[in-house]
Amino acid sequence: MNEHVGQEFDNAALVSSDRGSFFHPFTAIADQQANGALVMVEAKGSRIIDASGKEFIDAAAGLWCVNVGYGRREISDAIAAQSQKLPYFHSFNGISNEPSIRLSEKLLSLAPKSMRRVFYGSSGSDANDTAVKMLWYYNICRGKPEKRKIISRDYAYHGVSVASGSLSGIPMVHQNFGIPLDFARHVSRPDLYRDAPLRQCHTEEAYSAYLANELDQMIRAEGADTVAGFVAEPVMGTGGVLPPPRGYFQEIQKVLNLYDVRLVADEVITGYGRTGTWFASEACGMKPDLILTAKGLTSGYLPLSAVFVGDQIWSVFEEASKDGRVFAHGFTYSGHPTCAAAALANLEIIEREGLVEHVAAIAGDFRAAFDAAIGGCAIVGEIRSAGLMMGVELVADRDTKAKLPATAKIAGRVATAARRHGVLVRGLPNSDIIALSPPFIVTEEEIALIATGLRNAIEDVTQELRSEGLI
Amino acid sequence: MNEHVGQEFDNAALVSSDRGSFFHPFTAIADQQANGALVMVEAKGSRIIDASGKEFIDAAAGLWCVNVGYGRREISDAIAAQSQKLPYFHSFNGISNEPSIRLSEKLLSLAPKSMRRVFYGSSGSDANDTAVKMLWYYNICRGKPEKRKIISRDYAYHGVSVASGSLSGIPMVHQNFGIPLDFARHVSRPDLYRDAPLRQCHTEEAYSAYLANELDQMIRAEGADTVAGFVAEPVMGTGGVLPPPRGYFQEIQKVLNLYDVRLVADEVITGYGRTGTWFASEACGMKPDLILTAKGLTSGYLPLSAVFVGDQIWSVFEEASKDGRVFAHGFTYSGHPTCAAAALANLEIIEREGLVEHVAAIAGDFRAAFDAAIGGCAIVGEIRSAGLMMGVELVADRDTKAKLPATAKIAGRVATAARRHGVLVRGLPNSDIIALSPPFIVTEEEIALIATGLRNAIEDVTQELRSEGLI
Repeated sequence: MNEHVGQEFDNAALVSSDRGSFFHPFTAIADQQANGALVMVEAKGSRIIDASGKEFIDAAAGLWCVNVGYGRREISDAIAAQSQKLPYFHSFNGISNEPSIRLSEKLLSLAPKSMRRVFYGSSGSDANDTAVKMLWYYNICRGKPEKRKIISRDYAYHGVSVASGSLSGIPMVHQNFGIPLDFARHVSRPDLYRDAPLRQCHTEEAYSAYLANELDQMIRAEGADTVAGFVAEPVMGTGGVLPPPRGYFQEIQKVLNLYDVRLVADEVITGYGRTGTWFASEACGMKPDLILTAKGLTSGYLPLSAVFVGDQIWSVFEEASKDGRVFAHGFTYSGHPTCAAAALANLEIIEREGLVEHVAAIAGDFRAAFDAAIGGCAIVGEIRSAGLMMGVELVADRDTKAKLPATAKIAGRVATAARRHGVLVRGLPNSDIIALSPPFIVTEEEIALIATGLRNAIEDVTQELRSEGLI
Repeated sequence: MNEHVGQEFDNAALVSSDRGSFFHPFTAIADQQANGALVMVEAKGSRIIDASGKEFIDAAAGLWCVNVGYGRREISDAIAAQSQKLPYFHSFNGISNEPSIRLSEKLLSLAPKSMRRVFYGSSGSDANDTAVKMLWYYNICRGKPEKRKIISRDYAYHGVSVASGSLSGIPMVHQNFGIPLDFARHVSRPDLYRDAPLRQCHTEEAYSAYLANELDQMIRAEGADTVAGFVAEPVMGTGGVLPPPRGYFQEIQKVLNLYDVRLVADEVITGYGRTGTWFASEACGMKPDLILTAKGLTSGYLPLSAVFVGDQIWSVFEEASKDGRVFAHGFTYSGHPTCAAAALANLEIIEREGLVEHVAAIAGDFRAAFDAAIGGCAIVGEIRSAGLMMGVELVADRDTKAKLPATAKIAGRVATAARRHGVLVRGLPNSDIIALSPPFIVTEEEIALIATGLRNAIEDVTQELRSEGLI
């Protein structure tokens, strides 16, 4: 990239304007007012440059989404061409457009065979919100209006709308907002590192059985006739990058079948290759009734979400429509032609370059690089990964797994230190966990640079913690 | 436009693919399966062409949104340029990007002076959902966690997420979904045509006082300490194209002030010029605490919503953040740089071409064209308009205002007939009302063609109704 790119921008002016006008999501307002923003201006591949000209490797792919990397001319061109031809039309009342039709057909060809139709929105939050409404609609059509509770998992992230935020289980997402609403329930997340030992579960299978039993108990306590669905990410993302223990979803699925509870797979992070398969739910043994996707669908180039509707739910919806009733849900931008064109170009790249297979192929080396670089660090408790998503859990003591005090804000602190070393990683909310999810096209050399940058950051912070007497 | 554009498409193949893959919003599934989709492929100005080559005048601007018209090279170019430079980055944790900063500053310069910051999402639904969460957060920060009911109006449309759909008051949006949730309440919509006479209100002022009193009664019955907000479109759109009676919002505002209830102006339809002013809320005498916008912000070219936060709410948020707490709300695509670039180009066009003033200037002629063309039709009960939005209420009898039977589905029927005459208008849900909202650049000649097409459609349907004995 052009090393002088930052010089065309007046960073100070942008920071000042940002401070006075832009209400940032997931930000402490006072911090932004005091410290000013980091203003991004240009990116290519896995590299991004701020308005002062500083370059970073984006080891988080934005927010788990820029899977094909920045600066893909093919996607920009497809967006520009569609935007000139038909920038927008709605899909209400059976009206359609060419890119959305082509995308729908393409998506069904990639998805598990039981999926029947694709419903569009613009975000993972709206996909989760739509799933809630679909489950309620489904059960009302079946004459079971009381069957509407949805069970999620502690620390899960499913979005921030009132309903999807209720499914989320991260304390920060609930606090001061007066959610979760009472249709949402939460069981334990599968946490082999911390929770399984507490439960005396000494094998993954035993822990899976324990968690399935917990779900079974909850459904029975609530009353199966009040429970509509169970929602889960195949690999929990923002909640800690937690791959499921062996047998987990098979055991969960048995419980769901027993009580006529539908399974929603939130693949907003994992969909389209992040873990080395097109959809992680299949690979994890899930048999979902709804699959929710967004992020990787367009690699974040434009906002688009897609909800896959499986045969059991679709057949109820189709039957219910025979009296002429409208499925009165959907967005102005459902099936947005320009966003669909971006998705088509993105999927074309993923297929042509074999990026899903590539993720599967390099996952081992990716993991090995971090095991080698940071596996021995005094404050690294565990490294977990699935494909190109990785979680690094930071601790005060590796042997006892003792946590640092919450006031140390260790995850955010390491992420800030990594930024100084030219690497963007994320500190996950309400946790001591760092997440990495680089673009699929990250090079071997870049992986080495990320690993080194993160090690340096962890070492810097370790020294600080020592001098503060925290370790 | 190229008259042969449709010929490059295989309409039958697209319709078939649509039928088997695309789950349409706000559509009766069985109808779409039986009748197939109308597939749009290209558009320019106010004209749009389907895959069979048929051209329509889009008198609805998509869904009240393509305000600057289709095929604006300037917007496509801005989108393409930003997409190549920095297609995406998130705005979490105080990270920012140049187009979103420039847009935020621009938006505040256009908005009412009491607005302090701009929060972004991707749809009108998420803007309304965000408003609900902001009101709850605001009151929890103020130590009033019980103050969380939000009062909306019957037949209002505020979106379809679980929370925004609860604010909506259109029966179809609630039916079978098990909403509204119990935080939402609904007072009467202001309907001078049907409701005011029933209430014995013989002047607009008297009707405004009547409605304000209804709101006052509701707040007192619920308990003022349980009511957080009142949400209203300045001119109700999907609920019937209902401009407020004189003095309405002034009277409403007095009641809200009395009970410490915040006012949310839903300007998703009216924002950015639809009624001939940048924001309709100011012109209607509203003093909103939050202003919600989407649609016209990008003219629909890309999905983007913007919530303006006024000083009273912002100052509570800012104060609450001083302990370092994160405002844990926001979307992957909040502040999406490419969508912000589209908005900037769109606003630039609106300003440079003076389109807001243009709407104000042609509104009278627009109205006069329809008064002349359809004002005398036997089934036209009333024509209502504000700027370039118009509602036509259809009746069985103009003198008695008697309605046609619901089974006649008169609004949808006239919209379908208009399509045959080359004009796209919308039949509003759960009503006998046709809505028109052409692009701001609609020409005098096109207005005449729309008026003629609609008259022909109304006359066709009138003949059918006569032969069916319905009038």
